[in-house]
Amino acid sequence: MPVSAASTQPPVYDVVGVGNALVDVISHADDGFIHQYELVKGSMTLIDTERAIYLYKALGSAVEMSGGSAANTMTGVASFGGRAAYIGKVSDDELGNVFGHDLRAVGVQFRPGAPADDTPTGRCIIVVTPDAERTMNTYLGVSSLLCPADIDQATVAAGKVLYMEGYLYDRPEAKEAFRLAASVAHAHGRQVSLTLSDSFCVDRHRDDFRSLVTDEVDILFGNSDELLSLYQVESLDEAVARVQRDCHLAVITVGAKGCYIVSRNDVLTAPAEDVDQVLDTTGAGDLFAAGFLYGYTRDLPLDECAKLGAIAAAEVISHVGPRPLVELRSLLS
Amino acid sequence: MPVSAASTQPPVYDVVGVGNALVDVISHADDGFIHQYELVKGSMTLIDTERAIYLYKALGSAVEMSGGSAANTMTGVASFGGRAAYIGKVSDDELGNVFGHDLRAVGVQFRPGAPADDTPTGRCIIVVTPDAERTMNTYLGVSSLLCPADIDQATVAAGKVLYMEGYLYDRPEAKEAFRLAASVAHAHGRQVSLTLSDSFCVDRHRDDFRSLVTDEVDILFGNSDELLSLYQVESLDEAVARVQRDCHLAVITVGAKGCYIVSRNDVLTAPAEDVDQVLDTTGAGDLFAAGFLYGYTRDLPLDECAKLGAIAAAEVISHVGPRPLVELRSLLS
Repeated sequence: MPVSAASTQPPVYDVVGVGNALVDVISHADDGFIHQYELVKGSMTLIDTERAIYLYKALGSAVEMSGGSAANTMTGVASFGGRAAYIGKVSDDELGNVFGHDLRAVGVQFRPGAPADDTPTGRCIIVVTPDAERTMNTYLGVSSLLCPADIDQATVAAGKVLYMEGYLYDRPEAKEAFRLAASVAHAHGRQVSLTLSDSFCVDRHRDDFRSLVTDEVDILFGNSDELLSLYQVESLDEAVARVQRDCHLAVITVGAKGCYIVSRNDVLTAPAEDVDQVLDTTGAGDLFAAGFLYGYTRDLPLDECAKLGAIAAAEVISHVGPRPLVELRSLLS
Repeated sequence: MPVSAASTQPPVYDVVGVGNALVDVISHADDGFIHQYELVKGSMTLIDTERAIYLYKALGSAVEMSGGSAANTMTGVASFGGRAAYIGKVSDDELGNVFGHDLRAVGVQFRPGAPADDTPTGRCIIVVTPDAERTMNTYLGVSSLLCPADIDQATVAAGKVLYMEGYLYDRPEAKEAFRLAASVAHAHGRQVSLTLSDSFCVDRHRDDFRSLVTDEVDILFGNSDELLSLYQVESLDEAVARVQRDCHLAVITVGAKGCYIVSRNDVLTAPAEDVDQVLDTTGAGDLFAAGFLYGYTRDLPLDECAKLGAIAAAEVISHVGPRPLVELRSLLS
């Protein structure tokens, strides 16, 4: 846990997100499709242009909706009534315009970074199976070109909490951008949060993630698989004990079983919300983080933050698509 | 009613659709938005580039899905298990690719016509109000440039029924394309069907529509408002009597009250299907025509054709989006 200087300015934003700016291409298919096209069910796999074209051709009719993990989270924060900004890279093409529109439309300040020619806006081909599980195949496009120059430092400095997605932590320039954003945030007395994003993602960059968590991260989000992968242990109790030493605060979701809230002196548990019918789990973790951070930036008790997270996650898994369809503030009693 | 020569070749397609190729941009808003932006509730309004940009900016977060009236109908025919083809113009851009993909993905043969530079794929901004009514604002883009050269005559000649949308009947070149397609169909002993599309559309081209209906159309689709507008009468009985004289077969929908099936010697009525919750009426007429034509091209009795139309319409209004979310054949008992 880093030590932050006190900020001299009141924050303009509750949360500033940084992530891969993606438009989701959502289609339904059965497990036969998953096997036939050798997809990794329930995970996120990076794909190249050729594979993206091949998969899209095989895909049934689809719906296009703005996505991107941290971007989904920022729309959730805004939907609760919070002030959110987002840094991520899109191209000046139709999907880039769609992505920017859908952030601004819900009141998220969008900082798209510098344009890059000839590389299209990234997209994520999501296959939803009848069990509501989503399998993601991401063509990163221009989103992966995020570099330190794309980090709007004034925006980062103006957010109470910086929220970054592990997905982004892949190319050297993006890692630099990541570290820069964290150092700007801390220099202004802000907090830095990270979501581990995906267990394969953790697997590829385990050492980097561990040093990030120890050196830079104040609040860690992840699910149980990701935490087990981070510490390469088989027992969640052991992983929780490890993260308690490394991190000021960690919030670990365990699907329908709720979450652990791991702080220096305490390990709390909080339940998930009941959902009548789970239709598409896309965005569950993103929206959980949104609710939690909305509460956290309002200094609510940690169990209430988790409750807000659970409410937001329940909303997003009850319909197709990674962002709320109702104003989340309307779900608060 | 025209007299057709007998075809020398068995048809390859049940239905060949011709229409404006559009991607729908679907958003939810209340009646306040409709009034503030002076939209014509429940209707289709053509908008130019400037207005499209203005409206999109004002619009809340949206979802992109392939649409276009006749294209929706063709996906419905295919979803029942029929053989469908579609002629309509898109650009080589992201939304054009999406449009083509979503037709092919459900087995519709797509004949996109010649590409046109510098004019993007058309889009329809659809505002769905809490009463499930849809208000459409169409930026036609390249779709409106359809001309006789874009009509794939071999495809038209190979379809049992040609299906054209009134929306298309606007620019002189498109009107020519329309007449050409009808004459090719008739020269090959095929039938020609037309949907009136929209009462404002009928209003703009009433004389042309009347001569089309008398000279070229074997099967006319429309709703009661459109038929009243076509004949400028106030009584539906009178309009029905008029269309009975002009047309071999007319199928006139009256919303939840079902439809009239008007043939030379008979006026039948058929009920609509019950729907638990109407969420979005977009595509209701398109999918009614799909079910009707699927039955018609299988020589089913007219009341059974109407029943198939009602089943397809009920499916599409029970969710957001203009195309079926389930295989319509799975709804047949």
